[in-house]
Amino acid sequence: MTEITEPTLLVNRAIVQRNIKNMADKAARNGVALKPHFKTHQSRSIGHWFKNYGVNGITVSSLKMAEYFAQAGWNDITIAFPAFAGQAAKINNLARNHDITILLSSAEAFDGLRQAINESVSVFIEIDTGANRTGLLPAMKQEINSIAHIINHSQHFSFKGFYSHPGHSYGCRSKDEIKEVHNQTLQIMQELKAYFSSSFPDLVICIGDTPCCSVGERFEGIDQISPGNFVFCDLMQVQIGSCSIRDIGICLASPVIARYPDREEIAVHAGAIHLSKELLSENNHFLYGKVVPLRSDLSWEKPVEGCYVQSLSQEHGIIKCTPSFFENISIGDPIGILPVHSCLTADTMHKYLEIQTKTVHDHLQASN
Amino acid sequence: MTEITEPTLLVNRAIVQRNIKNMADKAARNGVALKPHFKTHQSRSIGHWFKNYGVNGITVSSLKMAEYFAQAGWNDITIAFPAFAGQAAKINNLARNHDITILLSSAEAFDGLRQAINESVSVFIEIDTGANRTGLLPAMKQEINSIAHIINHSQHFSFKGFYSHPGHSYGCRSKDEIKEVHNQTLQIMQELKAYFSSSFPDLVICIGDTPCCSVGERFEGIDQISPGNFVFCDLMQVQIGSCSIRDIGICLASPVIARYPDREEIAVHAGAIHLSKELLSENNHFLYGKVVPLRSDLSWEKPVEGCYVQSLSQEHGIIKCTPSFFENISIGDPIGILPVHSCLTADTMHKYLEIQTKTVHDHLQASN
Repeated sequence: MTEITEPTLLVNRAIVQRNIKNMADKAARNGVALKPHFKTHQSRSIGHWFKNYGVNGITVSSLKMAEYFAQAGWNDITIAFPAFAGQAAKINNLARNHDITILLSSAEAFDGLRQAINESVSVFIEIDTGANRTGLLPAMKQEINSIAHIINHSQHFSFKGFYSHPGHSYGCRSKDEIKEVHNQTLQIMQELKAYFSSSFPDLVICIGDTPCCSVGERFEGIDQISPGNFVFCDLMQVQIGSCSIRDIGICLASPVIARYPDREEIAVHAGAIHLSKELLSENNHFLYGKVVPLRSDLSWEKPVEGCYVQSLSQEHGIIKCTPSFFENISIGDPIGILPVHSCLTADTMHKYLEIQTKTVHDHLQASN
Repeated sequence: MTEITEPTLLVNRAIVQRNIKNMADKAARNGVALKPHFKTHQSRSIGHWFKNYGVNGITVSSLKMAEYFAQAGWNDITIAFPAFAGQAAKINNLARNHDITILLSSAEAFDGLRQAINESVSVFIEIDTGANRTGLLPAMKQEINSIAHIINHSQHFSFKGFYSHPGHSYGCRSKDEIKEVHNQTLQIMQELKAYFSSSFPDLVICIGDTPCCSVGERFEGIDQISPGNFVFCDLMQVQIGSCSIRDIGICLASPVIARYPDREEIAVHAGAIHLSKELLSENNHFLYGKVVPLRSDLSWEKPVEGCYVQSLSQEHGIIKCTPSFFENISIGDPIGILPVHSCLTADTMHKYLEIQTKTVHDHLQASN
């Protein structure tokens, strides 16, 4: 067994590739293009795995991420983050040699962009379908219409269509609730498409969130989907109802550093700087991760019922144990922790150990 | 003004040096050695600032951090994290040329260490003074006595004394509550010292947490203190009662990316991967940071009453605004955000822009 003497983020390639395949198959069945959001893994080499499933365009959430994946050979990149004039120099650099789509999330942001962009870019107008994060409200049809025409009449810009991240799906706690959000989103985007299709017959509709893309069954009117988290999944997605625990593709391996019999707790080297402080509420307590036994090949079993990460400080995690788990664990033993939010755990760990090949995979955060 | 087009972690050297000076002066007044915990800044160059205040020994929370600061020229390093046999190779490497103190946080961890350590190390026995994280309970005097003797009779090891991080001070919400935790800790450590001083006349007592070290007024019986967070402070320390808002030495500068008049909310480029998901409860709502206007020299004013970071996704932050703040802000404007937990914000940002010199300071996380 590879010795685990420090927090180590494991990735199970078989699970991850199955997750990619399932989403790619679903996209193909529904006639939509999969433009996966790479913010979850932020890894050149894991990104490369998508190429075997027909993926040729991607979504990212920052200019840094766009630059990183452009260097890794991706050409069709949607920067799904509100663009503004201060980013123009970097957008121009990227757009010189790549097919870049930017997001316009408010009318006033375009004034500055129009003056500062001097390479060809496509523009998605972001629609707020209920998440109340960013984007124009679908009811603002006149304003949307006016912006779309201004975009198309501005040199270097072409209006591509509408993008929405229905992030309010993260408030769901069952497949039925997710389907309801998905169907509402579908209806809003279909109405927009119908309304604007005479003026813009080629407009593209893209929606992207893992719960809706995983659970939703109908995609009429949708042209592209851009989910991200599905590649790894996590405990939050399980709680929302969008995946099962067996779909979780990463796991933080960490050594036990102390045992406290009076409290039936163990301390592990896995803190807030490894797992992130994302937390879940379950059975009337909070948890920062669930405990999975590690096999000798570093694959992991299902969670040990009743064992969970109950508190985190910067480097320490305290695991609430069942009596039988506690009795069988010793200092130095590695345990696995399934993360609450895989995007954040990957971001803080910024590298992966693939359990199949024992290869280390890169992450944007380690490439600066 | 330096243009802020992406999340940028500012450090105000004047505030940070004042924080260091205040703690160093307090330590000197009370006859205790300051062995500051470097887990907060994790920066070679910021660490160097401490040398002007008589600091010649430091505390760290991981082997990686010990290696990083050893390379930066620090010799006296306490690794304030439970040691276990799996770390022995790295501890031996460090101890070959440095004065290394390790932490023993349970009796059973020593068995493995004894066989694997082959360079001279000092050992603090960690005492759990009430935080219920790691360490032996002070009532376990026989066990502690037995371990201390075993340590001293083992080749390469010398028993140094007792270390405690009374992290339950983070549950306090006033100076009086902090003083109570501090005085309890003092009493426990003084009793241990009295009990063990005949067998171990040179034993050293070290306590380290920012609330108690900042607010506590008596340090009789204490030889060393190892607070960390005081160097930067943060909103959590303000809420606990251990510093004032003017002591906060770092600030996340971030551009406004969208404005939503209906909600009186603005979106900024500052998400969970920048601020961390540490949160505070205040006035019946949660917040992930407070908004401070930035001056043209990148220094910041005091928080705008009623403005705060109300939600975070990976890259986006949504700021709840007052009407007057909202009216005066435009897309592209930089705002400052004071972090809830500076250690975690620094860890995710992994570099600093010093506002006085516009120098970029390094961070361990960017040095891998």
